[in-house]
Amino acid sequence: MVEGERLWLRLQQLARHGARADGGVDRPALSATEAEAKRTLIAWAAEAGMSARTDPLGNLFLRREGRENLPPLLIGSHIDSQPTGGRYDGAYGVLAALEAVPDAPRRPVEIVAWTNEEGSRFAPGMMGSAGFAGARATGEILACRDADGITVEQALAQTFAALPELPVGPLGGAVHAYLEPHIEQGVVLEQAGIPLGIVTGLQGKRTFAVTITGEAAHAGTAPRATRRDALLAAARAATALDALTADPADITRFTIGRFTVSPNAPSVVPERVQFSIDLRHPDEAVLRRLGDAVAATIAAATQPCAANTEELSTAWPSLFDARLRADLARLATDPTMPLLSMAGHDARFLAPLCPTAMIFIPCLGGITHHPAESIMPEHALAGARLTAAAAQFWSS
Amino acid sequence: MVEGERLWLRLQQLARHGARADGGVDRPALSATEAEAKRTLIAWAAEAGMSARTDPLGNLFLRREGRENLPPLLIGSHIDSQPTGGRYDGAYGVLAALEAVPDAPRRPVEIVAWTNEEGSRFAPGMMGSAGFAGARATGEILACRDADGITVEQALAQTFAALPELPVGPLGGAVHAYLEPHIEQGVVLEQAGIPLGIVTGLQGKRTFAVTITGEAAHAGTAPRATRRDALLAAARAATALDALTADPADITRFTIGRFTVSPNAPSVVPERVQFSIDLRHPDEAVLRRLGDAVAATIAAATQPCAANTEELSTAWPSLFDARLRADLARLATDPTMPLLSMAGHDARFLAPLCPTAMIFIPCLGGITHHPAESIMPEHALAGARLTAAAAQFWSS
Repeated sequence: MVEGERLWLRLQQLARHGARADGGVDRPALSATEAEAKRTLIAWAAEAGMSARTDPLGNLFLRREGRENLPPLLIGSHIDSQPTGGRYDGAYGVLAALEAVPDAPRRPVEIVAWTNEEGSRFAPGMMGSAGFAGARATGEILACRDADGITVEQALAQTFAALPELPVGPLGGAVHAYLEPHIEQGVVLEQAGIPLGIVTGLQGKRTFAVTITGEAAHAGTAPRATRRDALLAAARAATALDALTADPADITRFTIGRFTVSPNAPSVVPERVQFSIDLRHPDEAVLRRLGDAVAATIAAATQPCAANTEELSTAWPSLFDARLRADLARLATDPTMPLLSMAGHDARFLAPLCPTAMIFIPCLGGITHHPAESIMPEHALAGARLTAAAAQFWSS
Repeated sequence: MVEGERLWLRLQQLARHGARADGGVDRPALSATEAEAKRTLIAWAAEAGMSARTDPLGNLFLRREGRENLPPLLIGSHIDSQPTGGRYDGAYGVLAALEAVPDAPRRPVEIVAWTNEEGSRFAPGMMGSAGFAGARATGEILACRDADGITVEQALAQTFAALPELPVGPLGGAVHAYLEPHIEQGVVLEQAGIPLGIVTGLQGKRTFAVTITGEAAHAGTAPRATRRDALLAAARAATALDALTADPADITRFTIGRFTVSPNAPSVVPERVQFSIDLRHPDEAVLRRLGDAVAATIAAATQPCAANTEELSTAWPSLFDARLRADLARLATDPTMPLLSMAGHDARFLAPLCPTAMIFIPCLGGITHHPAESIMPEHALAGARLTAAAAQFWSS
């Protein structure tokens, strides 16, 4: 039974874990803060008579047993955030799912909170769902390091230690279907005045790690003619990539989000710059053409420095399950519309594994990954109602 | 009595404090490493019968008493380094001075190691000499913070605690004359094949702190048309400043050495970039024109982001004392030539206080602020010999 006031209260309660002074949330994957948030979720699930377990990648599962021993219906999202994140990205999907669990389903229903969806602490993101689905090897995931040099394996050990009563089950397993409720992170629903989006699929995404290597030199003495200034080279590369990805239709998404300079001292010509590239487009042909031009664009712009461009992840555009989408459209008692997801989601990695769908609710002004991220209580309720109807239908 | 082998050995011994695996030195101002290096210097001075004291800014003085109670002759440089620094920048001047102290001078002779010349930990640099000379207020200096938020006052307390036997005397005082031996950090002496430079003066330098403020947004959803991407704006600013300061004669020095991005996450459009500007020229009119154009150049390049440009320090070109320079040319037993310093030095702040001069020795390939920084033992000895002759002459 969906209770809108409880859902809204819990959204605000969960946001206390990692609360920023500006009203936003900073809850890094596998941090002590995230472990506290998991403890809160586990307690709420226990009130509803559900059991909790984790897996070797720290994904959290809250399980309602079914009357029959069948592969579970999985519903959820993630609870990690960007460093300057909001209250609803990820958290909404997990808490809407918690409202949507049937009392005595034929098929087991599990709520999931995937590890490190955001990719801010450990790059790339969607680590938990990718590992669960077998798209990334566990050993490779465990060896990833954050900016402080801490590995996923070390951070997982801290999370497990913080939740000693939580059993660790095996990784992966059969899944009947996966549903992910999420805020839209765009303005399509808001501009259409429609409270529910049934997501048709995900735009494609390619990410790159770039290293520009020049030479450190004295800011007061080294002549310009002999300098190999990695910062100025990287600035030219950023501007050239911005030109490469210019798009009058404004569909291409190009972002340099991380950019670090070494040695980063005011009177030393920078020796090295490392930066990230995030490139997205819903059309595979366009994404292929632009992504394939990235390395050469950087190499041409960064002379006389050396440039190394490595593709970190490649996700071509994907479509969600047609039958589940039709079910959602039929089950909804509020207005719905189909729309494409511009952001990536854990659903990307579940889609090859089992029938997968997503529900979007509007997000004010499309503002997200920002402390000002906001949603309306009535939209939160509408999304939870459709999630509950789908959970009832697919688990019966 | 100058001993070349002892000088060379001590240069290598001092480089152990903060030694990098690549042969360079990382010895931040007011760090535990620098305090250890000071302990070593104090011990060497004690062997020669000299006393040690510090002042409220952490400047270290090693004193040979004079036969008469007169203002001291001051000789020295600094022992802090850049994060990717070499063995000789600064350290050479202090250790050459230690070889050059007369046994029984009429006038006291003091060796000085100034605090935070490099400005890498606390910006701007030459903090100790500026405070000694009264060019910067002590309270303002003590409140400066490093990248970790530690104030100069806190770092000083740690240095004082690490050297409890070192008395703290008053700040400043009358000085008879100041001499600073240093590596050239350029290629003029090397290309001329001359072991000693008598420095005519310092090129001018203006430094700026720039903040570009945009808005954080989701890399996958925020349309380009609505973005205010602080990283792309800063890249355009860097390129525009590079164009502003382009100079066919290659005399202008323009460097963006520090550049930090916030929140610095791969899938978040950057909200804020902060960067440093270091601008130098020996001609005051040119330095005035270029520096005055910096803020407008940045503002024009960073639309639709907001830009704030603050001038941190302004040092116009300065000339050293003509009589001291003539004395040095006459006292030298090795070949000398006059030359301009392209780097800034603590001598800049002593010059308005007392007759001031500098001696340069060659530095291989002009490489400096880099682990590969290197000098020749015979040049080190020649510089120490001229320093000793001058110390004898000016203290008698």
